[in-house]
Formats: sequence, C-alpha cells, structure tokens
Amino acid sequence: MLREIDFFFYIGSTYTYLSVSRVERIAAREGVSLRWRPFHVRAIMIEQNNRPFVGKPVKLQCMWRDMERRANRYGIPFKSIPDYPVDPEGLANRVAVLASLEGWCPEYTKATYRAWFLENKAPEDAQHLRSILSRLGKDPDATISQADSQKIRQRYDSETEQAKELGIFGSPTFMWGAEIFWGDDRFEDAIDWAKSHPS
Amino acid sequence: MLREIDFFFYIGSTYTYLSVSRVERIAAREGVSLRWRPFHVRAIMIEQNNRPFVGKPVKLQCMWRDMERRANRYGIPFKSIPDYPVDPEGLANRVAVLASLEGWCPEYTKATYRAWFLENKAPEDAQHLRSILSRLGKDPDATISQADSQKIRQRYDSETEQAKELGIFGSPTFMWGAEIFWGDDRFEDAIDWAKSHPS
Repeated sequence: MLREIDFFFYIGSTYTYLSVSRVERIAAREGVSLRWRPFHVRAIMIEQNNRPFVGKPVKLQCMWRDMERRANRYGIPFKSIPDYPVDPEGLANRVAVLASLEGWCPEYTKATYRAWFLENKAPEDAQHLRSILSRLGKDPDATISQADSQKIRQRYDSETEQAKELGIFGSPTFMWGAEIFWGDDRFEDAIDWAKSHPS
Repeated sequence: MLREIDFFFYIGSTYTYLSVSRVERIAAREGVSLRWRPFHVRAIMIEQNNRPFVGKPVKLQCMWRDMERRANRYGIPFKSIPDYPVDPEGLANRVAVLASLEGWCPEYTKATYRAWFLENKAPEDAQHLRSILSRLGKDPDATISQADSQKIRQRYDSETEQAKELGIFGSPTFMWGAEIFWGDDRFEDAIDWAKSHPS
C-alpha cells in the first residue's frame, strides 16, 4: 500500500531547510512516500496576522541559533545566517510549483536551499536561478517563462488556497489524512502517525 | 559534578504541561539536575509583541491538537482543552516562586498543572489553590499571604527581568550556560548539550 504524506513548504521558510535536507532519507527508510507541495505560506501568515519573526529580534536570534544547533544534530551543513527574507516576487516558489508538476521538485528545492544557506545566494536571483536550472538539465528561459505563466501562477494560488482551507499556516507542514503536523520537528510525529494509521 | 539546567516556566503556558509532566524522570535518568524557575513570560511576550495565539484561531487549534498527540506520545494524560488563559493576577505563579525558594516547586507545579488540564480547575482559583496547598502539607492562609508579599512579588519581577536579559521569551525554556532551548520539544536537545558541554 502506498503511504503518502503531503509535505507543504515554502522556499523562504528557515526551518524548511532542515526538512528539505533530511525528509527523503527518513521517508525512504520508513517506507513512506512524500508529495512535495510548494505553497505561498507568507500570504497566509500575513492574512492571519501570524508573523513569528517580523519585529521580534529576540525570537529571531534564538531561531537562528536553534537552527544551527539542529543542523549540527542532524549532520546538515550550516555555515552562517543567510540573507532573509527572500523571494519577494515568488519566482523561486513558482519554479518549485512547475517542478512539482514535472517531477523534479525535490532536486530543485534541495539545490536552491543549499545555495541559499551555504553560499547566501538568494533563491530568486536570476543569474543564480538559471545556473541551478541548467545544472538540473532544464532550459532556463523556457522554465522561467513557464513559471511566470498564468497556469503556474494559478496553480500556486490554488495550492495556497487549499493549504489554507486545510488549516495549514506554516512551513514546513506535514499532512496525513486530516492530521496537520507543523514544523520540521514534527516530521517524526507525522511518520509515526502515518505508520500507525495506515487507512 | 553537578549539572544543573535552568528550567524557566510560567503557569499558564500550554506546552509547559508536557514539560512539567516529564522532565524530572528524564533528567534523573540522564544524571542532570533541574532548577525550576517560575517567571512572568506573559509580560515579556506582551512587551515584545510576541503573542503566538491571541487572535490566531487557526494556529491555536493546531496547537491544542499537537498538544494532545504529543501527550499521547509521551504517555501523559490529556482529557480535553482546558480554559485558557489563566492566572491573570499572577497568584498561582507567585506561589510557585515561593515554592521555588522553599524547595516544593516541582510538587506544587505538577499538582496545579494536573488539576488544570485534567479537571479544568484554574490554577488561581482560591478554593482550589487552598486545597492543593493543603494536600502538599502547606498552610493555605500563610502561603497565600507570603505569595502576596512584597518580597515574593519582587522576586517574581527580578526573575522575569533576569530571564528577559538572558534572551528568554517563551515557556518552557531550558538554559545551560549561554544556550537557550525554547520549547518542550527542545528538552532533549538541552540535555544532550549539557552532557556534551559539561564545563
């Protein structure tokens, strides 16, 4: 039986770096499949007045230190705090939406997160984005053009709308049935839940 | 060598129920001591405009469901969502401050959290608080009078001020040296850090 956990994420979320770097290996080991679903969490957060770090420097500082320690704990490279926030126009995320439809979303998302966190390259930077797409064997012009198309913009919006209707408000979120597991630190909970509630 | 982790908490924090119910057993197993330090996290949160649930019904609902699942995971009883918020005047927390000075803070805090979560008894309710104090072998009148004294009020304030200066903004927070671990779900990280950084 195929077990599939929805992995809702937003390129620009900080803790999502940890998930992007580790969920595949764990899911494979546990016999669980993941469906990578990029969505516009920032729109939902603004709408719900849920801004965990904007104007909260003490909490922000603690988050980065926690990220660094958690990365070390997981054996995930962490160099320094990258520029943040990123992707104001949503291009990097719309490329992820296209990639999710075409089957190369994990590779792209991992590459863009690694470059963001380890080389401080903004995911939406045009030259950098083209370089990543080339390395993935994609035509940069055609891909960016598709990511800018109405079809992909609408898909991004509809995925965001669906996430919101499901009660999702943060990235990463793992969903199994009606159960919402928010946060990289709840991925193991989601896996255990999926395995113990197979139907 | 004595290893002591500061356990900053506020009676009224939801996730603190999980910590109060489980940290002693784990700390004992791991050979780590805990110093229970009640503080007024709500004052810090208001000052820092950090209100995770006020006006955020979607996030609030997710938190309670997560609490319930986590309680089940840990084998901690969870009956239903209790009334929230509690202790508007700070009496229940000031009793905890007194208890922390006199050595009965864990017993009191566990008793008041159990009653809040399992019987929906507000920690500050006078009749209920007196009953808890009696069961702990304390004189209710004398204890409440001390908790209302200037000395204990000042201690509550100074502990809160110190927590704020340390960069603490949430409950529960575990602190070892300069490292801040925020959240019940970071207790194991704090333990591991303390054990691997003994000096």
